[in-house]
Amino acid sequence: MKWKVGDSAQLTAVVDDQRIRNFAVAVEDLNPIHLDDEAAMKSIFGRRVAHGMISASFISAILGTRLPGPGSILLGQSFKYIAPVYVDDIVTASVTVTAIRDDKPILTLDTKAVNQHGQTVLTGEATVLFRELDDWRERQS
Amino acid sequence: MKWKVGDSAQLTAVVDDQRIRNFAVAVEDLNPIHLDDEAAMKSIFGRRVAHGMISASFISAILGTRLPGPGSILLGQSFKYIAPVYVDDIVTASVTVTAIRDDKPILTLDTKAVNQHGQTVLTGEATVLFRELDDWRERQS
Repeated sequence: MKWKVGDSAQLTAVVDDQRIRNFAVAVEDLNPIHLDDEAAMKSIFGRRVAHGMISASFISAILGTRLPGPGSILLGQSFKYIAPVYVDDIVTASVTVTAIRDDKPILTLDTKAVNQHGQTVLTGEATVLFRELDDWRERQS
Repeated sequence: MKWKVGDSAQLTAVVDDQRIRNFAVAVEDLNPIHLDDEAAMKSIFGRRVAHGMISASFISAILGTRLPGPGSILLGQSFKYIAPVYVDDIVTASVTVTAIRDDKPILTLDTKAVNQHGQTVLTGEATVLFRELDDWRERQS
């Protein structure tokens, strides 16, 4: 295991209108609160907000590409949605290793996302099984 | 509250290559296991798999558009990834109300996704605050 408790990684992205619309189509989520100014004005937020799952998916993106990275298999995730993400907000998602099992290559990570004001928008936890891609191949051959 | 315990809704969608690529770009998740046949062959799955968050996002799509529907505010979600979703699999996501609080309009729902073979690919739970969009507006005026 090349990772240790305390290791962390992050990803920053602008959640602009195009990203929200692309996500909406990709996952069939055409909720008007994300896409329609007039409907969104009636909501508690008073304007359009991004899908919470966009920020959540940034976390999965880090897990799959950076820490632990390719070869990861997501076992479970939890999310608490703390605050809305508005159109054009800049979200920084991050993951930090909190535990690694002795008996299996399974990591637990604290996960969160903050906006450009430093406000936490999402917190959670992830459990990931990790082996390098090349190690998977050796086990199969 | 127009909903009651036991109410359910579902959404079926084909997780084809285009959807996977659109999702990958929307959430910055270019993990090669989702996009690159050669890298994916080295993984435990032996071929490309969809992002787990696509199935997870179908669940959020139901919550935001159908049950409870527009006016929902997602408070929290958990997911266990049970089995991979392969390119061109047909995923049916579903949500079922398991509890409604007496003191606040907060619903708890069991959530899951199955593939075209009836195999469960994802299970979880969601907690949602629900008011109709028009009801939010009245409270603001």
